[in-house]
Amino acid sequence: MRPSKRAPDELRKVTLERAVARYAEGSCLVKFGDTHVLCTASLEERGPAWLRGTGKGWVTAEYAMLPRATLERTRREVNAGKPSGRTQEIQRLIGRSLRAVVDLTAIGERQIVVDCDVLQADGGTRTAAITGAWVALHDCLTWMKARDMLKGPALKDHVAAISCGIYNGTPVLDLDYAEDSAAETDANFVVTGTGGLVEVQGTAEGRPFSEEELLSLLRLARLGTTKLVDLQKMAVM
Amino acid sequence: MRPSKRAPDELRKVTLERAVARYAEGSCLVKFGDTHVLCTASLEERGPAWLRGTGKGWVTAEYAMLPRATLERTRREVNAGKPSGRTQEIQRLIGRSLRAVVDLTAIGERQIVVDCDVLQADGGTRTAAITGAWVALHDCLTWMKARDMLKGPALKDHVAAISCGIYNGTPVLDLDYAEDSAAETDANFVVTGTGGLVEVQGTAEGRPFSEEELLSLLRLARLGTTKLVDLQKMAVM
Amino acid sequence: MRPSKRAPDELRKVTLERAVARYAEGSCLVKFGDTHVLCTASLEERGPAWLRGTGKGWVTAEYAMLPRATLERTRREVNAGKPSGRTQEIQRLIGRSLRAVVDLTAIGERQIVVDCDVLQADGGTRTAAITGAWVALHDCLTWMKARDMLKGPALKDHVAAISCGIYNGTPVLDLDYAEDSAAETDANFVVTGTGGLVEVQGTAEGRPFSEEELLSLLRLARLGTTKLVDLQKMAVM
Amino acid sequence: MRPSKRAPDELRKVTLERAVARYAEGSCLVKFGDTHVLCTASLEERGPAWLRGTGKGWVTAEYAMLPRATLERTRREVNAGKPSGRTQEIQRLIGRSLRAVVDLTAIGERQIVVDCDVLQADGGTRTAAITGAWVALHDCLTWMKARDMLKGPALKDHVAAISCGIYNGTPVLDLDYAEDSAAETDANFVVTGTGGLVEVQGTAEGRPFSEEELLSLLRLARLGTTKLVDLQKMAVM
Amino acid sequence: MRPSKRAPDELRKVTLERAVARYAEGSCLVKFGDTHVLCTASLEERGPAWLRGTGKGWVTAEYAMLPRATLERTRREVNAGKPSGRTQEIQRLIGRSLRAVVDLTAIGERQIVVDCDVLQADGGTRTAAITGAWVALHDCLTWMKARDMLKGPALKDHVAAISCGIYNGTPVLDLDYAEDSAAETDANFVVTGTGGLVEVQGTAEGRPFSEEELLSLLRLARLGTTKLVDLQKMAVM
Amino acid sequence: MRPSKRAPDELRKVTLERAVARYAEGSCLVKFGDTHVLCTASLEERGPAWLRGTGKGWVTAEYAMLPRATLERTRREVNAGKPSGRTQEIQRLIGRSLRAVVDLTAIGERQIVVDCDVLQADGGTRTAAITGAWVALHDCLTWMKARDMLKGPALKDHVAAISCGIYNGTPVLDLDYAEDSAAETDANFVVTGTGGLVEVQGTAEGRPFSEEELLSLLRLARLGTTKLVDLQKMAVM
Repeated sequence: MRPSKRAPDELRKVTLERAVARYAEGSCLVKFGDTHVLCTASLEERGPAWLRGTGKGWVTAEYAMLPRATLERTRREVNAGKPSGRTQEIQRLIGRSLRAVVDLTAIGERQIVVDCDVLQADGGTRTAAITGAWVALHDCLTWMKARDMLKGPALKDHVAAISCGIYNGTPVLDLDYAEDSAAETDANFVVTGTGGLVEVQGTAEGRPFSEEELLSLLRLARLGTTKLVDLQKMAVM
Repeated sequence: MRPSKRAPDELRKVTLERAVARYAEGSCLVKFGDTHVLCTASLEERGPAWLRGTGKGWVTAEYAMLPRATLERTRREVNAGKPSGRTQEIQRLIGRSLRAVVDLTAIGERQIVVDCDVLQADGGTRTAAITGAWVALHDCLTWMKARDMLKGPALKDHVAAISCGIYNGTPVLDLDYAEDSAAETDANFVVTGTGGLVEVQGTAEGRPFSEEELLSLLRLARLGTTKLVDLQKMAVM
Repeated sequence: MRPSKRAPDELRKVTLERAVARYAEGSCLVKFGDTHVLCTASLEERGPAWLRGTGKGWVTAEYAMLPRATLERTRREVNAGKPSGRTQEIQRLIGRSLRAVVDLTAIGERQIVVDCDVLQADGGTRTAAITGAWVALHDCLTWMKARDMLKGPALKDHVAAISCGIYNGTPVLDLDYAEDSAAETDANFVVTGTGGLVEVQGTAEGRPFSEEELLSLLRLARLGTTKLVDLQKMAVM
Repeated sequence: MRPSKRAPDELRKVTLERAVARYAEGSCLVKFGDTHVLCTASLEERGPAWLRGTGKGWVTAEYAMLPRATLERTRREVNAGKPSGRTQEIQRLIGRSLRAVVDLTAIGERQIVVDCDVLQADGGTRTAAITGAWVALHDCLTWMKARDMLKGPALKDHVAAISCGIYNGTPVLDLDYAEDSAAETDANFVVTGTGGLVEVQGTAEGRPFSEEELLSLLRLARLGTTKLVDLQKMAVM
Repeated sequence: MRPSKRAPDELRKVTLERAVARYAEGSCLVKFGDTHVLCTASLEERGPAWLRGTGKGWVTAEYAMLPRATLERTRREVNAGKPSGRTQEIQRLIGRSLRAVVDLTAIGERQIVVDCDVLQADGGTRTAAITGAWVALHDCLTWMKARDMLKGPALKDHVAAISCGIYNGTPVLDLDYAEDSAAETDANFVVTGTGGLVEVQGTAEGRPFSEEELLSLLRLARLGTTKLVDLQKMAVM
Repeated sequence: MRPSKRAPDELRKVTLERAVARYAEGSCLVKFGDTHVLCTASLEERGPAWLRGTGKGWVTAEYAMLPRATLERTRREVNAGKPSGRTQEIQRLIGRSLRAVVDLTAIGERQIVVDCDVLQADGGTRTAAITGAWVALHDCLTWMKARDMLKGPALKDHVAAISCGIYNGTPVLDLDYAEDSAAETDANFVVTGTGGLVEVQGTAEGRPFSEEELLSLLRLARLGTTKLVDLQKMAVM
């Protein structure tokens, strides 16, 4: 039995609220149950220096948590001089996931920065962030299209992400914090709308896992991301 | 005529929404028009080292803005190693304002950290933060009282803050961003529920200002903070 | 009775010694009693990047204390990677105060950096710094004029600053360290030669203060800054 | 055809040289072709603070590259104040991989730090590091056992790692730098001696990959890590 | 001919003014011509952690320059996060030089910090600093003795320092900035009152130097430090 | 008797192995007994900004130790934000030593960075580094010459370095760690192939030293560096 009483293949209640930030070109408040992430997409006229002259743009992401998003207050990273290793790992993952579905040539030598700020954290913040970031990015690209700033179709596909894990010996979908901290194996999957894999990250927390277990988690993840992509479609309709 | 069409002594629409953060001991989402600040109060069992053995506790504040709270995206301070001078100035001001109405002996050798995170910024973020922080602090102290953690009444008074300025030659209340960036003189006032002054900060942006102008701003500020304190009273009723 | 036996409206002995630094374009060693600040004005041929092409220059200030300026040795800020919040607050205040009396167009696209280094601290270092910085700036502008570097009169007025406070229930002028650490209310005023207010900063250290108290402090400050401006006039004669 | 002319399932020449560092409790110079990593295991009598009183120890890893390990010189990270995101990601991965095969209770409240310093880099530095780090760790534990410092068998299994990728449409084993920079999909696998999966990280560099592709990479990885574990066995015989 | 018209073996005018800092236990403003360094000695009741339990104390030094001590303004090091290599080299040299003449056991488990702040720089700041630091240290030890804080005679000898160099082919004593920047060889000597060598640092700026040249510089240095020690004796009489 | 049983004027076994790094333009693994330093010379097409337009190039050095080069593990400096004072002192010394024998005009507006990474440390790492760095630099210049990148003969002479000290009252050559930590006086000498002195650094660790002692150390150093230069000659033959 899962702490939340959900079935093994049951997502938390997911909502995607668009246009929540007055100034951003695109924005989305995504909720996976009690995990809430505010995603904003900001268009910057200057792309990164290393792309100058290539005609290509860039999509990047930043991730942070409010100090009291968590059960216990977490210290702000501002005093550390650099984001923590975990923060950097996550923002690199979000950026790669979004770039996998964007035609960087279509956006020209510009940069889109997607900020994912966790307002409340109950597990799965990185996967919620990717799922919501896609919506913010979508709206930013729509905004650009309306201003004739795109050289062609820029968004090639949907992308969504979900965590899975082996909890009490059973593979389960969409871990919340209570499950995440007790899971034997923890995996994150980033999947496109057409079912392609963008990123697979499986980690044994306790004993090593088998190929069969990896596959059962992958099967759950496909189920979950299919639903998330449906929700994205409804959100941007 | 003010850009927002408000009368010179008219506040923006102010709302104070309590209990918006699941984990914090106290929280408040304060809105002054399009300025939105999420305030959370976190109780920490350990007070600061320099108060050890005194029987007294501490109330401190931290302040930050989400990168796309602003018209143009602002870079995160995390990479700078320390909050900017402006950020430090503001969080010191919020902390002083709250401590002015708290009996630090009543809370014992503990610390309450009030985080003020600006979700959206349209001028007056520091005054909105102080006004909302009081509500979050109030609820944190109520939480503590319910658990018999206070040695006596801890909250001595209300405290609220408002900005005023001279815009196009006229003293006006509660500057929004459009006014703030064009004002000749800009002043922030922190006032208690009983009308005492906690902080007065007036700055000439262009030509120096006169004593009469300072007094007319102070008069407006009293009007504004009286209304803000009324809203606080309704919020915590 | 004040610890120093001064009358409530009595300044400490103030001296302004010019041309104390061999290499600086302008310099002044200002003493407010035992508070000693070395101010140097340095002309830099390059103004800040964000003013390029505007024809305007900039005046900025930096502030620091020698480690043993204080009763107890203070650690150098060099190891912290950034000036403390207090230091930044003060140097921003000095810069704003000086810019209030300078025509930035007259100096062209250059920058004047005024360094205020506290050799000895007995309270009121920021107000002494502003008062002395004006002299250093004056001499730097004279130096520039002698070399035909100004596009017109650059110095519009004097500017001086003083602290006041309520000590043992009485409003007093020019707090020294003993008074400053015991004052109930502490206020700094920056005033021009023609009596205009550039900055008013009042803070309740203990109980909140009233409008009447603010006004009595302002009255004292006017007395003090009038005398300081007279001393500046004599110094640069 | 691979640039190195290797068969798709062919490892580079791998050597594991033990006892290469005079002072370390365990050490190994691992070479995967032109990728050379010096691994040292250092025993520290003090475990991390958060394990005090639990009777458990810790194994952690640090990773760095010499500036001219690479084709072009890379700047030292020392000036950046913190390891880069990539460095942190790698050293967290090495640490997790080693801890998966160590009984942390057996080593008591101590810490073993495994340093992996890349002397020369031709792709696959993190997987070479994990494979060599196991040997250094093995020797450190043997050193401890000889001094009666272990509470029981501490090393539960072997652990080795290898990268695979899809290069020119073909799944290949053990990417060198030339392949790595051109691969469509890149995956790292950490596998124990008994075939358990400790970590699976697959990333689409270009188009997303399919489940079948993931499985074919996994099959190659098993082949490779089986050989690496054999080499470890011979090395520590 | 030297730019200053001094004879090759002629020091600049040297003065040592004691008790210039109101709060420090010992202080000295040392001038070598236009090089002015303010030295303060501060007693700290806590010695460094690594001496705890040994009964021994420590003497350390810090060195810095005011931004406009130099011909052109130098940026403050505060923003760099750590003193520059040059600053660290100098403050380590000053500390070693002072410790060579102090009995660290006599001062008990305390620390004396000697701050050397260059108010004006015309070459030879480090040697002036050492010479003046000895006076500040002397007075700090006298202050301690008067309070019965010493376990025996703490100051074993004088120590003074001077720079020499080969300028236009001629060995000269006490280089000023004009000579220093043109010298072919530059050497600093730290010498005790009884003529012992504490530190010899010779550097070829252009062509390498010979043993004979090194010896002629050493001879000049002895002349200079003998005079400096005489001045120290007069200063503390 | 020396701990290593060497005669007072006996070097440790010194080897200079060239071309040890696959990618560097020049490289040398230098061993002075158990002190092992990997030196690589990297050619960078861009010289430092302050030499632009002068036609001159630059040679600089960086120095670091692997964490377990030492008896006890040393923490990496990466987390400190800047190299330690000791590290900076050493890398400045290596750079100065190399520049003393290079014609900076001959290499054009380019930069050669010599990295000296200590793999194992048993005293004398900086002198080993200088001696090996010369070989790496030599090979880098040969590489450049072969590509017609030099405007003339760039390498003017050999340069080598050795430490000497007074150990148990006797002057000895080439201190190892056991001697270094117990020596009364410690000196480093950098000497060219033609016997010129580039750098002399003598430090009294305990009692001050005399002129005679300095000279006896210098005599030993000449003996040592003559042999080191012979080894360099053989190495690059």
